[in-house]
Amino acid sequence: MKKAVILLSGGMDSTTVLAYAQKQGFDCYALSFSYGQRHSSELFAAATIAKEAHVRHEVIDLDLSRFGGSALTDDSIDVPDFKENKAQTKIPVTYVPARNTVFLSVALAWAETLNAHTIFIGVNAVDYSGYPDCRPAFIKAFEAVANLATKEGVEGTTAFTIQTPLINLTKGEIIKLGDSLGVDYSKTITCYSADNKGRACGQCDACILRIKGFEEANIEDNTRYKTKSK
Amino acid sequence: MKKAVILLSGGMDSTTVLAYAQKQGFDCYALSFSYGQRHSSELFAAATIAKEAHVRHEVIDLDLSRFGGSALTDDSIDVPDFKENKAQTKIPVTYVPARNTVFLSVALAWAETLNAHTIFIGVNAVDYSGYPDCRPAFIKAFEAVANLATKEGVEGTTAFTIQTPLINLTKGEIIKLGDSLGVDYSKTITCYSADNKGRACGQCDACILRIKGFEEANIEDNTRYKTKSK
Repeated sequence: MKKAVILLSGGMDSTTVLAYAQKQGFDCYALSFSYGQRHSSELFAAATIAKEAHVRHEVIDLDLSRFGGSALTDDSIDVPDFKENKAQTKIPVTYVPARNTVFLSVALAWAETLNAHTIFIGVNAVDYSGYPDCRPAFIKAFEAVANLATKEGVEGTTAFTIQTPLINLTKGEIIKLGDSLGVDYSKTITCYSADNKGRACGQCDACILRIKGFEEANIEDNTRYKTKSK
Repeated sequence: MKKAVILLSGGMDSTTVLAYAQKQGFDCYALSFSYGQRHSSELFAAATIAKEAHVRHEVIDLDLSRFGGSALTDDSIDVPDFKENKAQTKIPVTYVPARNTVFLSVALAWAETLNAHTIFIGVNAVDYSGYPDCRPAFIKAFEAVANLATKEGVEGTTAFTIQTPLINLTKGEIIKLGDSLGVDYSKTITCYSADNKGRACGQCDACILRIKGFEEANIEDNTRYKTKSK
């Protein structure tokens, strides 16, 4: 059975990716990070999701908040509410410097020791909120690094691949895919400011994209919101 | 003053790189990792070296030993003694899966928040012990990732560069360079199995390369050895 490392945040995208990878026949190893994020309730979600999917789950402590520079890890920067009419031209303050590069690197380290040649990441270029490290060109460049960096890439016969099954899907399409795979989205946390009961704010970029996604998919949204934006 | 992040292990190569970067006029930020390595005495060395160089020093906890797969992080794999007559055809067991990829990724995260565009790493393709992630092709590929992964790479005007001033130097040439820059190598730790007093084993690959380096440079070796190989 082919092994794969799955970057699992506990959000809807990565949870869909885990279900997708299992459906493709991969023996999955889920990897999460405690990186100083505000929304650590997503780590509880990730643990529950991994347990219910019967996969091994590692949570790596890596304190990126030491460096600051993001609203997701730095309490002095506010998470902004979604602004419908403001065209988004700049990378938002919720961007965490080099986050996906760091996550993929650690996933690569684990993959190599597991003798896995596939890493799954739930990046998305459609609703990607302007994050540079969600773009296809970034993923392709990292794949090149993976094959140059590793013992397996030099001595082995199987190349590493980074699989991004959601990269060209809209949020609605992701939800439809997950629904067809039996994903229970009520277990997932998307909100950047979820409370310690796992309730979403209903106001931030991530909540708004999630709400719109359920509308687009025409699937009932069973997320628990503190205040749901209309 | 241009800022740079320096990957500082506490060994002779990275210590030489720090002195070199300062000589080049960079405002340096030193980054070390507590990654579950056997030779944690190198972290004490790194702290001393950074302090004496008057640079900010961060030590990031990132437990790669959770994944195993290397003699440097896994107690069940022995660090081999150097074998003079055995041609080295395979990557050695002291290789830590994806280590430099992980280190460079975290350095990139810090660089981006510091508004630094340069990362220095003391990799070496001559005496590189067969590690894939010390080769020029790997460094070039990572540089491409850095410029695709980051806000600065997308919106900024200055490209990230990964500087590898030692990459084409022999160990003897590195020691000559460091000596000309005033590096005190007695403060550095190279040995994979140094004891908690900072004494080197004098037998492992790293010790043998160091001993030969001092001989080649014709500079007195003031390293403290438990047993010095002849």
